[in-house]
Amino acid sequence: MEQLQYHEGRTEISQLGKVALIERLTQGTACMGDDCAVLGVGDVRTLVNVQTLVEGVDFDMMYTPLRHLGYKAISIAVSNIAAMNGTARQVLVSLAVSNRYSVEALDELYAGMHLCCRRYDVQLVGGDTSSTRAGMVISVTAIGDVEQSKLTLRRGARHNDLICCSGDLGSAYAGLLVLEREKVTYQADPNFQPDLDGFDYVLERFLKPEPRTDIVQALAERSVVPTAMTDVSEGLADSLLHLCRAAGVGCEVYEERLPIDYQTSRVCSEMSKNMLPVSCALNGGKDYELLFTVSQADYEKVKEMEGINIIGYITEQGMPAVMVTPQNTTIELRAQGFQGVEE
Amino acid sequence: MEQLQYHEGRTEISQLGKVALIERLTQGTACMGDDCAVLGVGDVRTLVNVQTLVEGVDFDMMYTPLRHLGYKAISIAVSNIAAMNGTARQVLVSLAVSNRYSVEALDELYAGMHLCCRRYDVQLVGGDTSSTRAGMVISVTAIGDVEQSKLTLRRGARHNDLICCSGDLGSAYAGLLVLEREKVTYQADPNFQPDLDGFDYVLERFLKPEPRTDIVQALAERSVVPTAMTDVSEGLADSLLHLCRAAGVGCEVYEERLPIDYQTSRVCSEMSKNMLPVSCALNGGKDYELLFTVSQADYEKVKEMEGINIIGYITEQGMPAVMVTPQNTTIELRAQGFQGVEE
Repeated sequence: MEQLQYHEGRTEISQLGKVALIERLTQGTACMGDDCAVLGVGDVRTLVNVQTLVEGVDFDMMYTPLRHLGYKAISIAVSNIAAMNGTARQVLVSLAVSNRYSVEALDELYAGMHLCCRRYDVQLVGGDTSSTRAGMVISVTAIGDVEQSKLTLRRGARHNDLICCSGDLGSAYAGLLVLEREKVTYQADPNFQPDLDGFDYVLERFLKPEPRTDIVQALAERSVVPTAMTDVSEGLADSLLHLCRAAGVGCEVYEERLPIDYQTSRVCSEMSKNMLPVSCALNGGKDYELLFTVSQADYEKVKEMEGINIIGYITEQGMPAVMVTPQNTTIELRAQGFQGVEE
Repeated sequence: MEQLQYHEGRTEISQLGKVALIERLTQGTACMGDDCAVLGVGDVRTLVNVQTLVEGVDFDMMYTPLRHLGYKAISIAVSNIAAMNGTARQVLVSLAVSNRYSVEALDELYAGMHLCCRRYDVQLVGGDTSSTRAGMVISVTAIGDVEQSKLTLRRGARHNDLICCSGDLGSAYAGLLVLEREKVTYQADPNFQPDLDGFDYVLERFLKPEPRTDIVQALAERSVVPTAMTDVSEGLADSLLHLCRAAGVGCEVYEERLPIDYQTSRVCSEMSKNMLPVSCALNGGKDYELLFTVSQADYEKVKEMEGINIIGYITEQGMPAVMVTPQNTTIELRAQGFQGVEE
């Protein structure tokens, strides 16, 4: 019977990488490599996105409160709509769980989902539950809309555009590092009481991220339409490379301009493995901040926006994506991304 | 750290059942228990549905060709839109796989998806890929539309409405029984060549079901708008109970009227465990036929529709859902549904 699955050769998924894999699989379709699919033709476009969180890869039940997990699942979905300069309206949740989970556990999960839905004025309109043999899989579909004139794709960045980033970067990954450290200690000694004092900010950044719908609103209030946008889900380097590749341009960002919280720096200095805060920002991921480019003409407007950092600018077609250090060294950016919690 | 997951009491998911679980988790939301969420307010409503297939529960890689699996995943999504009397337009696919799968294997999976998309004029507009530690999880979001005047919910069945069913029932389950039998034999002797001759129809019904978009079209051509509709995904009994409970009515269906293919009967007679064809029809599931109710006034129109069987009628409020045997015995229907391939 197994010959039914016969196929020639074998290429490992890791050889190809996620982006190339999606491109290969969706060849010849309407998929465009943006954070959402764009539907419709009128003044208001519909945005749809689906994202799946898998236990053991995207979350570790050892230190993930179910309520936070539910909140985060919705948060990520809302963030994907925000990344197109749109507003999320509805979500559908497809949940697959093993019988290890009780109904009360799922109540907790959904309490977190409902909380996030209320917070961001999103309706939970449908979904599905099914079984797994082990673990939990959460798939969230988000539906939103955006005025055609404000629709922001990944591919619109132009030479000399300013590169802007909301909030701070690397803190979600710093939170994960703290949780992983405590997990290892706890596994060695189950009587160990985790010490999470002083890490509240980075922990919340990892466990319960907030989508930056406030930035979408602030841009609208100032009549700024970014030329390109995405959210920072796999690290700044990955997101920058997405924007550059989509437009065929390069970029230059300045290390000293990258917004990094002091707790992130503190976690790095406490870790023994020469972890630099800038590495968390570039490659950590899961920050769900917005990364966008604007025309130089919008400089004055963007400069005054709270929580926005101008970190660099777009360079000419064919140029690489680089970071300039305070010592004026130029480092070419490569996407490493978030490798999940297994490492 | 585990106290983070503390919650009082423990109710098993199996104690509650799938329908009650979804109702409990989505309390106070806009979820309505239909096959799709209905969005918008105009003459044309948007339909959205998400469904997840999990390896080891919803499909067994031992006997599921990846191309068929891809086809089936899209097929089910399209069927959910058809179940609301709508037309599917777009799908998004969220795929999570372990590194056991090669890129070529995923090419096969997507080849099946693309084939089904072309066959039913649906666009693949987006999606996501992520990792699992083991196995494959496919989540398909389908988006479609339906004229407001044709929108058919589960809850519209009225006393005396006729109950209609497309195609035949139980054949997908019969196909699964054949595959499971061959799997057991193969596991005992890997040199064994499976003998699937003469079972082509039931095998195709299980491995590569077709959504009944032709029925939606035929209804439209005859200006018949069903009073209620759903697709038969967990067996006829389950689907009938959905329609009856949603409207607070009962029903009477006639065993001799249930459409059962001769191959389904043949598989049952070959199996040693007293399997009755009618049990396959009632409890087998995965047929993806349409079950709908129409007003008596539409009797003449429906009677002439090819591939439609009138299997009974809706009884008064508060009455049970029953099947009448050829011996005139009345059996109350209970939902058992499809228990997956683990049994």
